[in-house]
Amino acid sequence: MSEAIKSSAEEGQAVNAYGWAARDSSGILSPFHFTRRTTGSNDISIKILYCGICHTDLHFVKDEAGMTIYPIVPGHEIVGEVTKVGSSVTKFKVGDIAGVGGMVSSCASCDNCTQGMESYCPKMIWTINHQYQDGSRAFGGYSDKLVVEEQFAVRIPDNLPLEGVAPMLCAGITVYSPMRHFGLFENGKHLGVVGLGGLGHMAVKFAKAVGAKVTVISTSPNKKKEAMEQLGVDDFLISHDREQLQAAVGTMDGIIDTVSASHSLLPLINLLKTDGKLIMVGAPLQPPELPVFPLIMGRKLIAGSLAGGMKETQEMIDFAAKHDITADVEVIPMEYVNTALERVGKNDVKYRFVIDVTNTLNSPY
Amino acid sequence: MSEAIKSSAEEGQAVNAYGWAARDSSGILSPFHFTRRTTGSNDISIKILYCGICHTDLHFVKDEAGMTIYPIVPGHEIVGEVTKVGSSVTKFKVGDIAGVGGMVSSCASCDNCTQGMESYCPKMIWTINHQYQDGSRAFGGYSDKLVVEEQFAVRIPDNLPLEGVAPMLCAGITVYSPMRHFGLFENGKHLGVVGLGGLGHMAVKFAKAVGAKVTVISTSPNKKKEAMEQLGVDDFLISHDREQLQAAVGTMDGIIDTVSASHSLLPLINLLKTDGKLIMVGAPLQPPELPVFPLIMGRKLIAGSLAGGMKETQEMIDFAAKHDITADVEVIPMEYVNTALERVGKNDVKYRFVIDVTNTLNSPY
Repeated sequence: MSEAIKSSAEEGQAVNAYGWAARDSSGILSPFHFTRRTTGSNDISIKILYCGICHTDLHFVKDEAGMTIYPIVPGHEIVGEVTKVGSSVTKFKVGDIAGVGGMVSSCASCDNCTQGMESYCPKMIWTINHQYQDGSRAFGGYSDKLVVEEQFAVRIPDNLPLEGVAPMLCAGITVYSPMRHFGLFENGKHLGVVGLGGLGHMAVKFAKAVGAKVTVISTSPNKKKEAMEQLGVDDFLISHDREQLQAAVGTMDGIIDTVSASHSLLPLINLLKTDGKLIMVGAPLQPPELPVFPLIMGRKLIAGSLAGGMKETQEMIDFAAKHDITADVEVIPMEYVNTALERVGKNDVKYRFVIDVTNTLNSPY
Repeated sequence: MSEAIKSSAEEGQAVNAYGWAARDSSGILSPFHFTRRTTGSNDISIKILYCGICHTDLHFVKDEAGMTIYPIVPGHEIVGEVTKVGSSVTKFKVGDIAGVGGMVSSCASCDNCTQGMESYCPKMIWTINHQYQDGSRAFGGYSDKLVVEEQFAVRIPDNLPLEGVAPMLCAGITVYSPMRHFGLFENGKHLGVVGLGGLGHMAVKFAKAVGAKVTVISTSPNKKKEAMEQLGVDDFLISHDREQLQAAVGTMDGIIDTVSASHSLLPLINLLKTDGKLIMVGAPLQPPELPVFPLIMGRKLIAGSLAGGMKETQEMIDFAAKHDITADVEVIPMEYVNTALERVGKNDVKYRFVIDVTNTLNSPY
């Protein structure tokens, strides 16, 4: 089960790395030897401590979008300890805790990059299932170490439990960014959150921390009690209960829709006030119908959004530290990862699995 | 062909009025006698001079949406001369020129109204095919006179040719409002305009006046020459020419889509830059597919928009006066209205028919 993959175009400049990878669309992960580049002048090396399991990892390991490059090492919700810093690095020193999310590089010069929106850079490199400009592969965080430009790592304050920080690097910033950008991250706003999973529960936590009213819209009545008692959700609507939805028509300033399973948008649009905003952060494989007339009648909008840029990610982490926010997680050992992915496929997790990498991967390096 | 319809709940308080109405879904208009309320303290009475023919008039007279109340007097792009003012009226005096668009009343107290967004008031009364709170009918501008709250009339400066002003009261404000609201009405922006009809050509004129770059996207190659030479359009894309569209991918800050015929949204979304905005002001009867993934990848949005509120309508007229902007129109006599509506159905007009009401209606009153 061992395999050596060149992960840098510069021959001989590589360090051994170890993780778990899927080799085909069965999606089954197993131990995998590969290499990472040595620490360049702008790079930091990280010993990975925790890595969250995002639904996107499952999509990729099973090649659900038909674009997976095997072998694939998933994982893009990474927290680790800095073990080396390049000569030009200013933000980190050895021993610091760093976080890395969905991207590891970008062009640094396009309009998106210069405005701190690296996630929209056409040359942005994803943390998993991608390759660098030099042709070397990008392998993710279900592994012992990572080498990354310091620009793509954020500083993690030491008052937060690190296992709960990991999911914020993707799930957290994916909801935080549009809430900020579309003006929904404000005291007194009424935010709807569709889907109470990894992303949804982070949206709830951020919105409550800023003083917003939060209504969850979910297919799962059994999530209601915990949502209201533990997360402080103000209201909880069952998405197939027409009466409940009718009673909430025209009450919300915005909705963060985290659900990628097919669902109708009209009931959500109807929940919005005039100028209300429906933000889609999950993409259904089949495009839904767009009810144009209801948008027109209320000057409403539907937008999509990726995770935020690096400056915004740091801002989110700092906000989380100030308000003592982390993800609710179930920490698992690496050998449980295949079972965990199976459970992610069934939404059977509250609200995120996080792999205890450093204590359970047993890296030989 | 004469018929008397109560248009005020206050019996005896009515004035005779005369216009052309459709009686059934044939949509054929013919002479029609009715009444309007007398001039209340907040009202002005207008002798109608010109009235534009909007595609919406055609939809309503033919009952294409299944919601027409017959008899219907169409017309909601109205310019006229003030003949009476109520005791509390401050904005107009007899002899002034006034314009009235798609709405004639609203609640004046909801959040929308207090923010100058009367068009989104749930109790807003449309100029045609609607009824007032007291049950009286709202009849439109294919008629000799109109009585309306002064709040729902705008002042028309005297340097503009009035036949060209009429279409601005609906077509103009319907594109001006979202261009302003969504930040597209700015020097240096690149605006796409889908469909070069009544709305589209107004969007071009406003955008050019403010210094934007304008690209028209149209199904009609034969509109290109005039668009570029007469309207000053910067580029003209044929919507079924994939190469042209491909060359323009990612170049536009926003698109005003004026087309209500079914069409795919994906090629339009692809034309937008990151954070680009596709604004729909025409509603296809069949909802189009919403390509969510492309929205997410560029934080793009799709919004709907109605005509603007009254303050914004006045602002538009004042802007038009300053920049010498009016609609390009074909002035017709009232007896041509049925032929004109037929031609509107075939988009056979550059760019708006306007009825010369005062000279051709031959009102007996």
